[in-house]
Amino acid sequence: MPRKERHTLGEQAAKNIITYIQEENYQPGDKLPNEYEFSELLGVSRNTVREALRVLVSRNIVTIRQGAGTFVSEKKGVSDDPLGFTMVDDRVKLTKDLLQIRYIIEPSVAALAAQNATPEDLEKLKEILLEVEALTGQRMDFTEKDAEFHAQIANCTHNTVMSNLIPVINMGVEIFSSEISQREYEQTIRSHRSIYLAIRDKRAADAKEAMQFHLLYNSNRFMEEKVLSEEQL
Amino acid sequence: MPRKERHTLGEQAAKNIITYIQEENYQPGDKLPNEYEFSELLGVSRNTVREALRVLVSRNIVTIRQGAGTFVSEKKGVSDDPLGFTMVDDRVKLTKDLLQIRYIIEPSVAALAAQNATPEDLEKLKEILLEVEALTGQRMDFTEKDAEFHAQIANCTHNTVMSNLIPVINMGVEIFSSEISQREYEQTIRSHRSIYLAIRDKRAADAKEAMQFHLLYNSNRFMEEKVLSEEQL
Repeated sequence: MPRKERHTLGEQAAKNIITYIQEENYQPGDKLPNEYEFSELLGVSRNTVREALRVLVSRNIVTIRQGAGTFVSEKKGVSDDPLGFTMVDDRVKLTKDLLQIRYIIEPSVAALAAQNATPEDLEKLKEILLEVEALTGQRMDFTEKDAEFHAQIANCTHNTVMSNLIPVINMGVEIFSSEISQREYEQTIRSHRSIYLAIRDKRAADAKEAMQFHLLYNSNRFMEEKVLSEEQL
Repeated sequence: MPRKERHTLGEQAAKNIITYIQEENYQPGDKLPNEYEFSELLGVSRNTVREALRVLVSRNIVTIRQGAGTFVSEKKGVSDDPLGFTMVDDRVKLTKDLLQIRYIIEPSVAALAAQNATPEDLEKLKEILLEVEALTGQRMDFTEKDAEFHAQIANCTHNTVMSNLIPVINMGVEIFSSEISQREYEQTIRSHRSIYLAIRDKRAADAKEAMQFHLLYNSNRFMEEKVLSEEQL
């Protein structure tokens, strides 16, 4: 079975390239050797290198920019749609499931962030907080910046898996509310500030509670709109 | 840029195949139309279908068995190594980070399982429990069955994201102990039984507590072996 064989060669070369990236301590964004150089380094054909790189691109381990070369991906090997959200038909159920998971994880993430954040982490968190506030002040869509705020809290934990997981779970949450009221803009600002201040001052218990309130407030909006209205007493 | 163009066609066809799978309600393991049929169905070339299928294979949405055809993947679109564990150099830190996340998530998962499990879910959970016990009784490696036990608890929650997430986090935890003592075999059996019984009897609070004890017991073994021994008072 030559097909199988070729597959294995490419996979093996992919593994060797991963080892090479780690041993040479390449960082996200760094430029890697070209096809020819990899072929020399690994002692395999350029065809095999090409196949290996295709595998690594699909796993978001490297990225190829036409004309510029091959780079270590900024996505750090986290796949697109890693948990298969695309394959879930019922989007309301998916959103409900994700809100449930966020409520389980993120309060503890906030507590760990309060415990472990460095001054640099906090500086970045404050920057993002102010950007969210600027957007809400102008009544602009703050979804993306909001996700960044939660992702930076995950980074503050210094738990690598948390840093990779939180953006996946947050990006899966679909915007559910057709209209965001004045009240919700204000609530977002107040909640984010409480969370930020508690993390900054290393008040882990308060950070956890502030995150609980923030998530419950938002879940509640969703449940009222999409779920409770269909329940009978 | 013909390359870009072709990429987009394949990606578009991949999206259409996903929609087709969902609309026709295909389940994991079901056989899909062949290349020729998809080409007719989607109104694209067989080359484009082939490219689309390659994308879907790499995302674990479909699987191709040589000579047998194309099937909906049992992996339900969850990528291999979805959170990029391969790219983390420090394996001890990775294990520590994963144990931390398990401790945050799994007790709540056990509580939800106690609340939501159906009789069929419980039957399957019991079956796996007995298999783990049989393996520990023979002093055989029970790692895989143990992971299955935890995955089935996640299934009992009926939260789709949980079902997809728990196996990812558990598979990432590397076996850390070179020797498993008699004591640990007994502890595994006792902990699993407590968790199972609490879930079966819908005692959510007890299920949560039993899972907390189980995870802390195991983390503790790891911390004593790998982390605490290097800390100074």
